[in-house]
Amino acid sequence: MRIDIITVLPQLLESPLSHSIIKRAQDKGLLEVHTHNLRQWAVNEYGQIDDYQYGGGAGMVMMCEPLSNAIDSLQKDRTYDEIIYLTPDGETLNQKIANQLSLKGNLIFICGHYKGIDQRIRDHYVTKEISIGDYVLSGGELAAAVLVDAIGRLLPGVLNDETSALTDSFQDNLLAPPVYTRPVDFRGWKVPDILLSGDPKKVEAWRYEQAVQRTEQRRPDLLGEE
Amino acid sequence: MRIDIITVLPQLLESPLSHSIIKRAQDKGLLEVHTHNLRQWAVNEYGQIDDYQYGGGAGMVMMCEPLSNAIDSLQKDRTYDEIIYLTPDGETLNQKIANQLSLKGNLIFICGHYKGIDQRIRDHYVTKEISIGDYVLSGGELAAAVLVDAIGRLLPGVLNDETSALTDSFQDNLLAPPVYTRPVDFRGWKVPDILLSGDPKKVEAWRYEQAVQRTEQRRPDLLGEE
Repeated sequence: MRIDIITVLPQLLESPLSHSIIKRAQDKGLLEVHTHNLRQWAVNEYGQIDDYQYGGGAGMVMMCEPLSNAIDSLQKDRTYDEIIYLTPDGETLNQKIANQLSLKGNLIFICGHYKGIDQRIRDHYVTKEISIGDYVLSGGELAAAVLVDAIGRLLPGVLNDETSALTDSFQDNLLAPPVYTRPVDFRGWKVPDILLSGDPKKVEAWRYEQAVQRTEQRRPDLLGEE
Repeated sequence: MRIDIITVLPQLLESPLSHSIIKRAQDKGLLEVHTHNLRQWAVNEYGQIDDYQYGGGAGMVMMCEPLSNAIDSLQKDRTYDEIIYLTPDGETLNQKIANQLSLKGNLIFICGHYKGIDQRIRDHYVTKEISIGDYVLSGGELAAAVLVDAIGRLLPGVLNDETSALTDSFQDNLLAPPVYTRPVDFRGWKVPDILLSGDPKKVEAWRYEQAVQRTEQRRPDLLGEE
């Protein structure tokens, strides 16, 4: 998989893209992530990529031309499956969308800033708009990093133990059950006996029951989903 | 505001915490963010902070002792309003929660990894569990960075134009209307006439109508919320 990220702040993405799972995925040759500084397609020598919004009001808007030139330039070299704009009014990211995107080949992510990008780029270039949640961030870079991570860890061979991703929260519309490790007694707080029973069937039944109970208490909305 | 982040990967957070709005907030003295490497409270000289889970199964669990020592050590120096664990089964972050947290003084964020942290830390230390969305990440670091950004930009004085945050998506349960900037005609794609009318009342009415329409189409669930 290849992901190209168009951003005005490639520096912000440096450390998230060079550590942990994303580093491992790249080291193994399973994922390529390239960041592109939008200012190389600026409309003038001052590096301008945004301007005041028509109709007035606070906040700048990212201009059509730098973005269209950036996308055109990337598309010259390869075909992209999706051109994704990270925006709070996009489709809300969930595990199902992450699963689907992890099957794609080439993706472009566009990181917005200020008041967002000119609507015409959304109308004529963008194929998918994704929000990582119902809150506003100062730019799309962290959303892009989140999406790279959510997708990247699903690529076959990235996680050491492939069963590990399958038992995560959301993969079966259930939250994960509580987990415990040594010591058995920490300051008088004890590990549930059943986890020490050595009986895999009992442990499995307890975990399932705990997962259902936690989901009912915290996220009953998930239980109704297919 | 002060935020202390407990993590096994402080390096991953370096660039998100030193750019953009978060840098500005720190430069202005409005926000302090400190990262703490959990391994300094490891249980042995090998830096161990995790262990196999009781009951068996894939994935490691972060141990009680390093986390409790880390929190105890921070609490010696000051009182914290919330000890927040970033976890996919926590309360889903939204703008309202971000607004509420932006009024606090001192916060601890705990970043989970692997299968998560020992349940006893959640039961006895953590005061709030937050998820940034219904998807799984390889660790809590990006979630912590997202939460710092969502909160940090709301602190008075951080954004240049304070009206700017108030007109973002979600602040009034409406998505933001489309935005446009120069040129008026880009490859034959034109800016809506009304935005060029010079009539602020008409522009405002159009934007409100567009915001309602976009919210009805994309996120009808938001319209029912108080």
